[in-house]
Amino acid sequence: MKAIKEEIRIERAPVSKITEVDFNNLAFGSVYSDHMLVCDYKDGAWETPIITPYQPITLDPASKIFHYGQSIFEGMKAYKDSNGQIWLFRPLDNHKRFNISAKRLAIPEIPESHFIDGLTTLLRLEKDWVPTTAGSSLYIRPFMFASGKGFHASPADAYKFMVCFAPSGPYFSGKVKVLIEETYSRSANGGTGYAKAGGNYAGQFYPTQLAIAKGYNQVIWTDDNTHEFIEEAGAMNIFVRINDTLITAPVSDRILDGITRKSILTLAQDQGITTEIRKISVTEVVEAAQNGSLKEMFGAGTAAVISPITTFGFQGVDYDLPELQHSYATSLKKQITDIQYNRSEDKFGWRFKV
Amino acid sequence: MKAIKEEIRIERAPVSKITEVDFNNLAFGSVYSDHMLVCDYKDGAWETPIITPYQPITLDPASKIFHYGQSIFEGMKAYKDSNGQIWLFRPLDNHKRFNISAKRLAIPEIPESHFIDGLTTLLRLEKDWVPTTAGSSLYIRPFMFASGKGFHASPADAYKFMVCFAPSGPYFSGKVKVLIEETYSRSANGGTGYAKAGGNYAGQFYPTQLAIAKGYNQVIWTDDNTHEFIEEAGAMNIFVRINDTLITAPVSDRILDGITRKSILTLAQDQGITTEIRKISVTEVVEAAQNGSLKEMFGAGTAAVISPITTFGFQGVDYDLPELQHSYATSLKKQITDIQYNRSEDKFGWRFKV
Repeated sequence: MKAIKEEIRIERAPVSKITEVDFNNLAFGSVYSDHMLVCDYKDGAWETPIITPYQPITLDPASKIFHYGQSIFEGMKAYKDSNGQIWLFRPLDNHKRFNISAKRLAIPEIPESHFIDGLTTLLRLEKDWVPTTAGSSLYIRPFMFASGKGFHASPADAYKFMVCFAPSGPYFSGKVKVLIEETYSRSANGGTGYAKAGGNYAGQFYPTQLAIAKGYNQVIWTDDNTHEFIEEAGAMNIFVRINDTLITAPVSDRILDGITRKSILTLAQDQGITTEIRKISVTEVVEAAQNGSLKEMFGAGTAAVISPITTFGFQGVDYDLPELQHSYATSLKKQITDIQYNRSEDKFGWRFKV
Repeated sequence: MKAIKEEIRIERAPVSKITEVDFNNLAFGSVYSDHMLVCDYKDGAWETPIITPYQPITLDPASKIFHYGQSIFEGMKAYKDSNGQIWLFRPLDNHKRFNISAKRLAIPEIPESHFIDGLTTLLRLEKDWVPTTAGSSLYIRPFMFASGKGFHASPADAYKFMVCFAPSGPYFSGKVKVLIEETYSRSANGGTGYAKAGGNYAGQFYPTQLAIAKGYNQVIWTDDNTHEFIEEAGAMNIFVRINDTLITAPVSDRILDGITRKSILTLAQDQGITTEIRKISVTEVVEAAQNGSLKEMFGAGTAAVISPITTFGFQGVDYDLPELQHSYATSLKKQITDIQYNRSEDKFGWRFKV
């Protein structure tokens, strides 16, 4: 990794807000640490990032972020081990995906040095903000958006890359009931579904509200053409266990290449679990639920970690998943979090020391 | 229309910037008038709009606009007649569509009074900003976005509705060459394509850049499943004239219900032109170009007005459209702009006096 030419300048907050935060009762992503990283793209180049106190951003009303949705983000977490050492999990993969998203949204890519040095410098400054309560973590939000102005529907000439931190509790509280969606869609063939683009999320809110009104927590998206194949759940990839085979849909231009998803596949394969990466039809899942071969369904993502699905709904019928003594979800979640929190061997070189 | 309870408060700019603007050389949407309208949604209700000097907006970095793309907009124009009277064109339809977009993006709808009273009050204050140069107009940009905070992927609890004005020259300068797209897509069945959502635009920029690199100005989108049917061009709806029949694709959940589009259909039908609202296959257009029955193609939208397409590209071949003495595009553009600028009878009640 090429280092940033100039050192990242730090403007310290005069007073820390940390004593105001109840680390035992953290919601997801709703309190923010004392500082943030800001890096501007102007005149065709990224400037050196700076760290400032967490504070409001000032933008012209004609900034394209307000009009044409040029925005991308990543979701990461920082983990503190029992010695107080802080770790990241596969952060280079987040940087790589960030730039894949950037390219699709016609946003300039950001060098690895700005992304990784930026967030690790901020992390060392904010190390006290990494929670140690079980189930809590420091959620890291790198994001980038069009700050350049204009009502012409074309890419902006200026962008802002930022990183903010939110000490967070679990993404889901309680059981996760999902609805298999048959009317609305998340993404098109040849669209932006594989990118972590802001607009992909806004489009999911209304159908998700309709599902919530029916008693579900999330929607499982299906392909927009036939609604016959399971894609992902917007905030997480989906795994299905039929008998002892663990199945997930292939990534595509519609489905996000989740880092938790691919880590699960590696861990499962490594311990001899049969995995299949293939299209999963709704019919197959319903039939498996009916004949008892559907053992588990779970979501996988940085925010959600591994979230077992307790019920799925389809065409007005709810199908309950069995409660297993030895579930893949529980075992794989333990394995992945043990690696993240430096409680087990890091066989695959996923941990990244901060 | 129910009036707003309280009067819209106006905070005037101490000095006008109008003398700095060269009204004879206006680009599209790149200079802004002296004032803007701002209206906040908080605690479940819209506040009374206020008018302030045009100035930067201050937002928390965790505002959901930066993360989850909750943003919508409208495009309108103000027209000044030879007596200095200002007119809008079918503004209630813009308000209606704005709320249709809002609903799909899980953004609270805004009352007609806030939208119409807001922008007409601002327009009366900024009347000197409406250009009178031929081909120029005051572009009106109502927009609305999530100002509420949080990294949880769910709708925000606070929003901002704003209106800004940009005196503008034509959207296209010169000939319009379009590429019929076969790889990328603009929208999914069951997606947000019919809404004026920010994310729909950002997703078009990269494929459009690829088309621009090949010498085209815009992309004509096709359906994401077969790429066999023409949809729209992102910034405009598409009309095709085969022999003397004027054809456009039906609006759907993927295609914007354009106000210029439907006005053109009404005007054409009124003067006895045969119109067809039906799926248009790429094969049909290519064959019509080859056998000489394809007479015209044009784009229609508020920004683009009616923009004749001179060439379309498909699978590496460019098809030039004939230059007609009496084109539908020229005639319909004259009729629609004559109504907009109060130069002809307003048979359909489309003009709206400010």
